[in-house]
Amino acid sequence: MQYSIAQLQEMFSAELQKHIGHLPTQPEGLYEPIHYTLGNSGKRIRPVFVLAACNMFSSSVKPAIPAALAIEVFHNFTLLHDDIMDKAPLRRNKPTVHVKWSENTAILSGDVMSIFAYQYLTEIADPLLGKILRIFNKMAVEVCEGQQLDMNFEKMPDVSADEYLNMIRLKTSVLIAASMEIGALLGNASPDQAQRLYHFGLNLGLAFQLEDDLLDVYGNPETFGKTIGGDILANKKTYLLIKALELASSEQRKELNYWLEATDFDAKTKIKAVTELYNLIGVKEIAQEKILWFHKESMHQLELISVPDSHKSVLKTIANKLIAREK
Amino acid sequence: MQYSIAQLQEMFSAELQKHIGHLPTQPEGLYEPIHYTLGNSGKRIRPVFVLAACNMFSSSVKPAIPAALAIEVFHNFTLLHDDIMDKAPLRRNKPTVHVKWSENTAILSGDVMSIFAYQYLTEIADPLLGKILRIFNKMAVEVCEGQQLDMNFEKMPDVSADEYLNMIRLKTSVLIAASMEIGALLGNASPDQAQRLYHFGLNLGLAFQLEDDLLDVYGNPETFGKTIGGDILANKKTYLLIKALELASSEQRKELNYWLEATDFDAKTKIKAVTELYNLIGVKEIAQEKILWFHKESMHQLELISVPDSHKSVLKTIANKLIAREK
Repeated sequence: MQYSIAQLQEMFSAELQKHIGHLPTQPEGLYEPIHYTLGNSGKRIRPVFVLAACNMFSSSVKPAIPAALAIEVFHNFTLLHDDIMDKAPLRRNKPTVHVKWSENTAILSGDVMSIFAYQYLTEIADPLLGKILRIFNKMAVEVCEGQQLDMNFEKMPDVSADEYLNMIRLKTSVLIAASMEIGALLGNASPDQAQRLYHFGLNLGLAFQLEDDLLDVYGNPETFGKTIGGDILANKKTYLLIKALELASSEQRKELNYWLEATDFDAKTKIKAVTELYNLIGVKEIAQEKILWFHKESMHQLELISVPDSHKSVLKTIANKLIAREK
Repeated sequence: MQYSIAQLQEMFSAELQKHIGHLPTQPEGLYEPIHYTLGNSGKRIRPVFVLAACNMFSSSVKPAIPAALAIEVFHNFTLLHDDIMDKAPLRRNKPTVHVKWSENTAILSGDVMSIFAYQYLTEIADPLLGKILRIFNKMAVEVCEGQQLDMNFEKMPDVSADEYLNMIRLKTSVLIAASMEIGALLGNASPDQAQRLYHFGLNLGLAFQLEDDLLDVYGNPETFGKTIGGDILANKKTYLLIKALELASSEQRKELNYWLEATDFDAKTKIKAVTELYNLIGVKEIAQEKILWFHKESMHQLELISVPDSHKSVLKTIANKLIAREK
């Protein structure tokens, strides 16, 4: 049968709850933060992608459950360590582990979570185990490379749009791509079909991250969840800022640099001024175009997979929702 | 053929060098610390155990090379993260990664190394892959639990000898035990034989750690490598201190506590006074007895394995060397 998004979400949440219930509890200093982290209210997008990709080729999604758990636990492990590196105080409106406990706790509990991810993967039966591990490992290394590039970019005076796109490909997109490919393989897709879904996920991830950059400036404050203008205040090198610096007139660049270097400013005034510069330079439209391009590319990959259209509708719906979050 | 320890060491070092040569180099901030860490002059004890265990059952040790690499890279990953948590400035007389670069670097480079360990494991062919992954994952989780307990113990007023032995079993011994078991399986040992080697390694690891505790106080300063009395100065809850506190007369306990609580003291005087208390209480002999007991237990496991005696001589030699380092 073809499951709906809500059904897949519910199925995964039930499985995750069951597994959280079976996690060890001692030593408490190690496992309490893991219960805290995995028990969050995350949207579980990535594991749903694993299951949905499986469901495209298989009426049962059961074979994909361990991989879905592995992907979700791995994702949460990277968040735990990223939050230390980024000195983030909050995650989903709750104190981060390194703040609530300590950095040491966040390091070690994160390490255990990454091993748990592999424990789930090891439940995959033999003929596919090696292949899926190789996909997973390659993705995992790339995610770390993306995090490293992201940290590098903070200290670099100039980052090109291509460098930025490569960074978000590694940091965000390959995890979505691998979720798709692994789910497809577990549904007995052919290697070619699984590759198509990998590229579907890769392009979708890029569109998703650019949409995130866009929403930070142009999102609806009531539905976005985060504060509008946060990236602007932090001088974050988003796609918008990079394109703005690239395309600005010398006058506009001077003004942009003024705000980037200002140390004493009113937050609202800075957000308003930079947003106006973005409007004048036209980076909103450029970002929207790029998002549509990646979205189209991902849909193209989906079209090339020869399964009944009804089997594609869940992935199509998720993809459309992800890049249309401001509406 | 049966390889000597020196041959196994050389073989492993050559393989490791080859693999280090194939590691990525970009982004530099991520990979330079990995080259630095893996290019150290470590004794490579654990990977040699993997190969030696394989060699007991198989004339070729080639099938065990990927697992030996995985064990060594995993071990170095744990050192990288442990050194952050323990705020250690030096490792093998060189600045630790978190000091030479930054904590963020040590976290992220460590994460990549743990993934590399799994990449090596994934080279194991299908019929054994799942089984060996399960052994590896169990061990990896236990090593983290051991590190957590070690950190907990620093803040606990009382630690029993049994709690201490359980901690070093997790933090140190299971890695040696799993190295043995995995090596044996890759040499086509039966599950029973591999289990015997697991327990050989487990007991040997316990003897090894207790010997380390002993050498810190009673070692030969010229051959020990570390400063004699370092554990005493740091009030480290070693087997000697735990047993001394357990067996001291009320007078002796008072004196021990005086030194444990002293904040202003001459290092040499403290080391001398505590060592004299250890002598009076007789903890040196108690530790030596315990070491011999674990050593005997490990040798017993080795005896029960039905392969020609000549196939056991390398493991016997290593075991005897490890627990007789003061001689």
